[in-house]
Amino acid sequence: MELTIREIAHLLAGELEGDGDKKVNAIAKIEEAQEGSISFLSNPKYEPYIYNTHASAVIVNKDFEPKEKLTTSIIKVEDAYSAFTILLTEYQRMIQFQKKGIEQPSFVHQSATTGENIYVGAFAYLGENCTIGDNSKIYPNAYIGDNVKIGKNTIIHAGAKIYSNTIIGDYCVIQAGCVIGSDGFGFAPQTDGTYKTIPQVGNVVIENHVDIGANTVVDCATMGSTIIRSGVKLDNLIQIAHNVEIGKNTVIAAQSGISGSSKIGENCMIAGQVGIAGHLSIADKVKLAAQSGIGKSIEDENVAQMGSPAFGHKAYLKSSTVFRKLPELQKRIEELERKLIG
Amino acid sequence: MELTIREIAHLLAGELEGDGDKKVNAIAKIEEAQEGSISFLSNPKYEPYIYNTHASAVIVNKDFEPKEKLTTSIIKVEDAYSAFTILLTEYQRMIQFQKKGIEQPSFVHQSATTGENIYVGAFAYLGENCTIGDNSKIYPNAYIGDNVKIGKNTIIHAGAKIYSNTIIGDYCVIQAGCVIGSDGFGFAPQTDGTYKTIPQVGNVVIENHVDIGANTVVDCATMGSTIIRSGVKLDNLIQIAHNVEIGKNTVIAAQSGISGSSKIGENCMIAGQVGIAGHLSIADKVKLAAQSGIGKSIEDENVAQMGSPAFGHKAYLKSSTVFRKLPELQKRIEELERKLIG
Amino acid sequence: MELTIREIAHLLAGELEGDGDKKVNAIAKIEEAQEGSISFLSNPKYEPYIYNTHASAVIVNKDFEPKEKLTTSIIKVEDAYSAFTILLTEYQRMIQFQKKGIEQPSFVHQSATTGENIYVGAFAYLGENCTIGDNSKIYPNAYIGDNVKIGKNTIIHAGAKIYSNTIIGDYCVIQAGCVIGSDGFGFAPQTDGTYKTIPQVGNVVIENHVDIGANTVVDCATMGSTIIRSGVKLDNLIQIAHNVEIGKNTVIAAQSGISGSSKIGENCMIAGQVGIAGHLSIADKVKLAAQSGIGKSIEDENVAQMGSPAFGHKAYLKSSTVFRKLPELQKRIEELERKLIG
Repeated sequence: MELTIREIAHLLAGELEGDGDKKVNAIAKIEEAQEGSISFLSNPKYEPYIYNTHASAVIVNKDFEPKEKLTTSIIKVEDAYSAFTILLTEYQRMIQFQKKGIEQPSFVHQSATTGENIYVGAFAYLGENCTIGDNSKIYPNAYIGDNVKIGKNTIIHAGAKIYSNTIIGDYCVIQAGCVIGSDGFGFAPQTDGTYKTIPQVGNVVIENHVDIGANTVVDCATMGSTIIRSGVKLDNLIQIAHNVEIGKNTVIAAQSGISGSSKIGENCMIAGQVGIAGHLSIADKVKLAAQSGIGKSIEDENVAQMGSPAFGHKAYLKSSTVFRKLPELQKRIEELERKLIG
Repeated sequence: MELTIREIAHLLAGELEGDGDKKVNAIAKIEEAQEGSISFLSNPKYEPYIYNTHASAVIVNKDFEPKEKLTTSIIKVEDAYSAFTILLTEYQRMIQFQKKGIEQPSFVHQSATTGENIYVGAFAYLGENCTIGDNSKIYPNAYIGDNVKIGKNTIIHAGAKIYSNTIIGDYCVIQAGCVIGSDGFGFAPQTDGTYKTIPQVGNVVIENHVDIGANTVVDCATMGSTIIRSGVKLDNLIQIAHNVEIGKNTVIAAQSGISGSSKIGENCMIAGQVGIAGHLSIADKVKLAAQSGIGKSIEDENVAQMGSPAFGHKAYLKSSTVFRKLPELQKRIEELERKLIG
Repeated sequence: MELTIREIAHLLAGELEGDGDKKVNAIAKIEEAQEGSISFLSNPKYEPYIYNTHASAVIVNKDFEPKEKLTTSIIKVEDAYSAFTILLTEYQRMIQFQKKGIEQPSFVHQSATTGENIYVGAFAYLGENCTIGDNSKIYPNAYIGDNVKIGKNTIIHAGAKIYSNTIIGDYCVIQAGCVIGSDGFGFAPQTDGTYKTIPQVGNVVIENHVDIGANTVVDCATMGSTIIRSGVKLDNLIQIAHNVEIGKNTVIAAQSGISGSSKIGENCMIAGQVGIAGHLSIADKVKLAAQSGIGKSIEDENVAQMGSPAFGHKAYLKSSTVFRKLPELQKRIEELERKLIG
C-alpha cells in the first residue's frame, strides 16, 4: 500500500495539519514508528512520544493540542483509536486484495472458470473444471485440484494445496502451506498384520468467512464431506480428520487435533494442543483448556474442561494443586498408619 | 472417473436393470446421492431410500425385488456391500492413477530416469539423477531432489518435498505438503552459549506400501538412514526425527513425534499426539494411548501404555480416577489427623 | 559432492596410502560403508571392520599400523575423529552451497535485488523489492513475498513460504515447507457470536545463524515484529505465534508451540510438544521437559520445569511416582478410616 497522508485524512474524514503529500507505506506504534509510517495517539500517557516520533503522520483526537513543536503531520479525528482500527482494517484489505491478473508462468486448465478481478500467482495450478469466484486471490505456488469450487473474495495463500473436489465459500482465508482434502487416515487390518487402504472418496466443504492457519490439514471424508461451518477460525498446524464437522463460529488454537467423525458444536473455544478422540460429539459453547485430551462426548453446553483425560476445568485445577503435594500426603498417610497400626 | 452404468455392471459381473448408458462420476450413500452418482443397498433398513434416491444407479443384492417403481437403474450382484467396496477401491485407484504424461511447465533434469506411464504435474521438479518408476505419479508443485529413487506405482501428492538422496519404494502414497529428508535437528553446544550445526549427511529410506500423511516430516539421518519399513502408515503432521526406524506395519496417528535414534517395533499402534523421547527402543505390537509421553524403552511386546510419563494403560486409568478425588482425599487425611493426633 | 581421495587427503592435511584417484561421493560409518564412500577409524574396537570394509578410503590416526592387508586407501591424520568431523562439515557446506545460478522457469520480479553467487531453483518466486544477499540459495518451489530481505549465506529450502516484509539475516537455514510471516491468529468476538479479523500488519524478523525446521510456522506480528534472535534453533512442526520473541541461542524441539506475545529468554532449552500460553515471560536458561504446559511466567533463570500445568522438574517426577500408587493410597486411607472411625 502507498497512500499520501492527505488520502488517509480523507479516508478517515479527518482534519489534516502539516504536509499532506508525503507517502505512507507502513503502520506502526508511535514509539517504534519509522519514516514513511503512520501511527496514532489516543492514551495521553504516550503523548511524550509524539514530539520526537519518526512517523510521517499521527492520528490524534480532535481535542489534541500539541504542547511542543511537532515534526510529524497530524490527522485530527473524533476518536483516534477507532479511526486507527479502521485504517488498519482498510490497510490489510488493500494489501491482501491488491494483487491482480494472471502471473506467468501459471497453469490454468482450459476448463477452469475464473471470475473477475482475480489474482493467479506464478506457479499456481488450477485443475480441470475448477471455479474461482470474483475477487479471489490464488497466491504463487498454490495448487487447486480438479473440480474445486472457490467462492468470492477468498484468499488462498502461497503454496496451499487444495485437493480435487473441495468446496470453499466466500470471504475465506487459507494461509500458506495449508492442505485441504488429503486422504483420510483409514486402513483395515488384515490377518497377516498388514493394512489395506480404505478408499477415501469424499471431499471437504468449507463454508463462508472461514480462516484456516498455516500448515493446517483438513482431510477429506471417507464418503460424504468433512465440513467446516461458517465463521470457523482455525489456527496453524491443526489436524482435522476425515468426516469431522466443526460448528459455526468455533475457534481452535494451534496444534490441536480432531479425530475422525467427531462433531464439534457451535461457538466452542478450543485452546492449543488439545486432542479430541474419534466419533465424539461436543456440545455448543464448550471451552477446552490447552493440552486437554477428550475421550468422551460432552453433552452439556457451555462447560469448560481441562486435563488428559479431561474433566471440569476448576475441578482439574484443584486436583492439580493436590497433585503437587502427593509426596507429602503419602508421608502423612504413613505417619497415620504408624500411629494407628503400629 | 467417468464410467457408464453398463461398464460398472460389467466390472462387478452384475446384472443390469434400467438405463445402462448414463455416466456415473461419483460414489455416495443412498440417502445423500445426487444425479450422476452410484450407491448401494445392502441393509434392508435403507430400502425406503431407493424409491426416491437421486442416484443414477444402485447396486443391490441378487434377491432384491422392488416393492415400488424405481427411478434409478439397478445392478444386481451376489453381495451388494462387497461389490460396492470393490467399486470404491477401483474408483480410488482409477482416480489416483488416471493422470498421465508430463504437464508443462515442469522441470525434469536431463539426467533423470523416468518409467512408463508416469505423471509429472506442472511445476513439479525432478532433480539430477533421480529415478521415477513405472506408473508413479508426481503431482504439481512437488519437489524431488537429486539422486532420489522412487519405485513403481507410488504417488507423490502436490507440493510434497523430497530431499536429495531419499529412497522411496513401490506402492507408497506421500500426501501433500509432506517433507522427507530434511536436516536432522543436531546442534553441539559451544562454550560461548552458541550452537554449532552437526552435519546431517544421511538419508531417508522408505520401503514399500508405506502411506505418509499431509505435512508430516521425516528427517534424514545424521549418518546412515532414517528407515520407514514396509506397510507403515503415518497420519498427518507427524514428526519423525533423524535416525529413527519404524518397524513393519506400525501405524501412527496424527501429531505424534518420535525423537532422534529411537527404534519402534513392528505392528505397533501409536495414537495421536504421542511423544517418544530419543534413543529408545519400543517392542513389537506395543499400543500407546493418545497424548502419552514415553521416556523409557518398552521391552515387552504387546503392552499398552498411557499417560505422561506413561505406564500401564489400565493402571493409568485407575490412577486418573483417584486423581479426580484428590481434594476429597486430602480432606479425609486431614480429618484422620484431627481425630488421631488432635 | 565428488572429490578424489587425494583431494580429501589434501583438504585434511593427511598422508595418503593407496589409490588417490578414486572418487568419493558419500560419507559413512565404517561398518556400513559402500564403494565410493569414505569413513574413519578412531576407536580401536572398530579396527576389525577396516580389513573388509567396502569404503574407498578410511581416515585413520597417524599411528595406525594395519595388522592385515587393506583393500581400502587410508588417509593418516593427527586425530581421525576430528578430521572426519571437519570433512563432514565441509561436505555438508559443499553440498548445500554447490547449487548456483537461476534455473528456469523461475519468477524474479524486475525490482528484486540479488547478490553474487546465489541459486534460484526452478519455480521459486521472488516478489517485488525483495533482496537476496550474496551466496544465498533459494531452492525450487520456494516463495519469497514482496519486500523480503534475506542476508548472505542463507538457505531457503524447497517449498518454504516467506510472506511479504519478512527480514532474515545471514547464515540462516530455513527447511522445506516452513511458513514465515503468516497472519497472526487474532479475532475479536462480536455480539452475534461471529468473529471479526484483527488486522495483522507487522512482520517477522529473523536474526543471524538461525535454523528453522521443516513445516514450522512463525506468524507475523499484529503490529511491530515477531522476533527470532541470533543463534536460535527451531526443530520441525513448531508454532511461533504473533509478537513472540525468542531470545538468543534458545533451542526448541519439535511440535512445541509458543502462544501470542510471549517472550522466551536466551539459552533456554525447550523439549518437544511443550505448550507455552500467551503473554508470558520465560527467564534465560530455563529448561522445559517434553509435553510441559506452561501457564505462568517463569521469572527465575536456570530452573527446570515439567508437567501440565508445569512445576519443578524433580518435584513433578516425585509426584508422578506417587500418582501411580494412588489407587493403593486410597485403599490405605479407607483402611485407616475403618480402623479409626468405624
